[in-house]
Amino acid sequence: MADSTALPVSLQDVEEAAGRVAPWVHTTPVLTSSTLDELSGRRLHFKAEIFQRGGSFKIRGACNSVFALPDDVAAHGVVAHSSGNHAAAVALAAKLRGIPAQVVVPKDTPAIKQAAIRTYGVEPILCEPTMEAREATCAAVQQQTGATFVPPFNSVLTIAGQGTIGLEFLQQVPELEAIIVPVSGGGMISGIAVAAKGIKPSIRIIAAEPAGRNDAADVAASKAAGQLVQLPKPATICDGLQARLGSLTWPIVQRLVDDVVTVSEEEVVAAMQLIMERMKVVVEPSGAAGVAAALSSQMRERHPGLGHVGVILCGGNVDFCSRTPDFWQRWLQPSPAAS
Amino acid sequence: MADSTALPVSLQDVEEAAGRVAPWVHTTPVLTSSTLDELSGRRLHFKAEIFQRGGSFKIRGACNSVFALPDDVAAHGVVAHSSGNHAAAVALAAKLRGIPAQVVVPKDTPAIKQAAIRTYGVEPILCEPTMEAREATCAAVQQQTGATFVPPFNSVLTIAGQGTIGLEFLQQVPELEAIIVPVSGGGMISGIAVAAKGIKPSIRIIAAEPAGRNDAADVAASKAAGQLVQLPKPATICDGLQARLGSLTWPIVQRLVDDVVTVSEEEVVAAMQLIMERMKVVVEPSGAAGVAAALSSQMRERHPGLGHVGVILCGGNVDFCSRTPDFWQRWLQPSPAAS
Repeated sequence: MADSTALPVSLQDVEEAAGRVAPWVHTTPVLTSSTLDELSGRRLHFKAEIFQRGGSFKIRGACNSVFALPDDVAAHGVVAHSSGNHAAAVALAAKLRGIPAQVVVPKDTPAIKQAAIRTYGVEPILCEPTMEAREATCAAVQQQTGATFVPPFNSVLTIAGQGTIGLEFLQQVPELEAIIVPVSGGGMISGIAVAAKGIKPSIRIIAAEPAGRNDAADVAASKAAGQLVQLPKPATICDGLQARLGSLTWPIVQRLVDDVVTVSEEEVVAAMQLIMERMKVVVEPSGAAGVAAALSSQMRERHPGLGHVGVILCGGNVDFCSRTPDFWQRWLQPSPAAS
Repeated sequence: MADSTALPVSLQDVEEAAGRVAPWVHTTPVLTSSTLDELSGRRLHFKAEIFQRGGSFKIRGACNSVFALPDDVAAHGVVAHSSGNHAAAVALAAKLRGIPAQVVVPKDTPAIKQAAIRTYGVEPILCEPTMEAREATCAAVQQQTGATFVPPFNSVLTIAGQGTIGLEFLQQVPELEAIIVPVSGGGMISGIAVAAKGIKPSIRIIAAEPAGRNDAADVAASKAAGQLVQLPKPATICDGLQARLGSLTWPIVQRLVDDVVTVSEEEVVAAMQLIMERMKVVVEPSGAAGVAAALSSQMRERHPGLGHVGVILCGGNVDFCSRTPDFWQRWLQPSPAAS
């Protein structure tokens, strides 16, 4: 095995993160389901980050980033751009620390997600829906206020914060032989890989990546090529899994991730239905991607011997509330497919 | 207070039920939500029977009924009719005891619910979708097989079994001042009322009843009239709350239920959305009725002083799996209402 001290994030970074975020984040429960065990042929352990504060794991990295700032730096506030869970997490982390936050969101961000940000006392700054506009608007805010930028995944503090999931999960289920983690920018899987392999070197880390309707699985392609492959943004129902690996996450993914299982849109949807129907918990499509991988034929063929497998249910923010009673009453009718 | 020994079910019946079903049913968790606390102006405690075996509280009454049978009677099996959660619960209880079960279901029962019954090794017997056909088919099965009929709510064993929720809930949250229970045939609320008032006489039991689009709230009408009022079946999205009070449940409801809060279809739908979005758990419309009551203006006006209020999330069997990937992909788009 290569020397993990050369990687940008260490087990010690994650352990420090765990101490820093402990007062602010939930220890999320681990769920099991005999139905899903039967379907997968394993004992599956689901780390329910859907019950995390803000509805996703993102608060771990956001809190680690926000609470690591020295007081005089923190006083100028923080700034982030995101159309999803990271935005709300940074707003919440700043509120917990009692410092200002500015959050830049593309103007096509659903009202419900903008409302979530306002819940934490932050009025979102709207910008054009391009990465350039997001970054330029953030830079302008930084210049005006001296705020610190909180990256969504490509930073040591963010990666180490997300890694606390790995520490917690192995404390809760020491017998885990593998952990399946949905991958996007790679912050969560990098952190979990560093933490879990630091504690238990034999554990396997498996990425779950949506190929998208445009077949754009960059993690699988990069791992296969042995170098970071640039692909277009995936067109996928997994709205939280549309980022690309970064300069810090790629070296960790390259070294510590053992396999990448790509999942189709249909597999994600089927997994989401199954989780909601059998386990009675709400996951967003991105949160179901790991379950789709766990149930896939790739998993069965390539990892026949794994018994105890962990799966991260990373987020549960589904936009139910924008639906009208009429919609629901139609939706709750038995569908033709059922009869 | 009137003498509760005159009621058809006693605290002792419930305590016996608790011992009988303990090996077979889950002790379900109690959930909380700061968002829903703020909206209701109380500390709400949600008894999550959605995580119960079979996805609803019905397994409690079914197990109490099935395991109370003497061996020689049980050997002839059990029979039930139901279009919903009771059918699956009786099939599962019989499987647990290792005896035959026959379940009569109206032929318009969704395939998904028929499939749930098959999961427990029972092939549903289809009949015409009328109460007369259901009862006649059951009677024929009984004649042929000598099976014992397991009533969905109007029996001492069923009521006492459902009452174990009340015992468990007060052990988990002794500070409860009231419990809100969705009402239909009245088995669950009767059992909970007997148990909870038996242990803590000051506790208030509040029924949550859907008025339906045809304004058919029979529990509210009967309580107001002081006698059992016959009304048509409510036309409601709460498919699990369409039964009517029975000869055993009405006297208990009359004596021990302190108030009936009627909820509209819109309130049920809004509550269901809120639970799924904020608490990340799946409830069926019937399971959301208690939450709708907890958030209602009636509750606020008539019970201003209540602090700790329990709410039963009685079932989580929503028919997600009959939906196609196409449906979900459309559904998961941000709706026009959100922008």
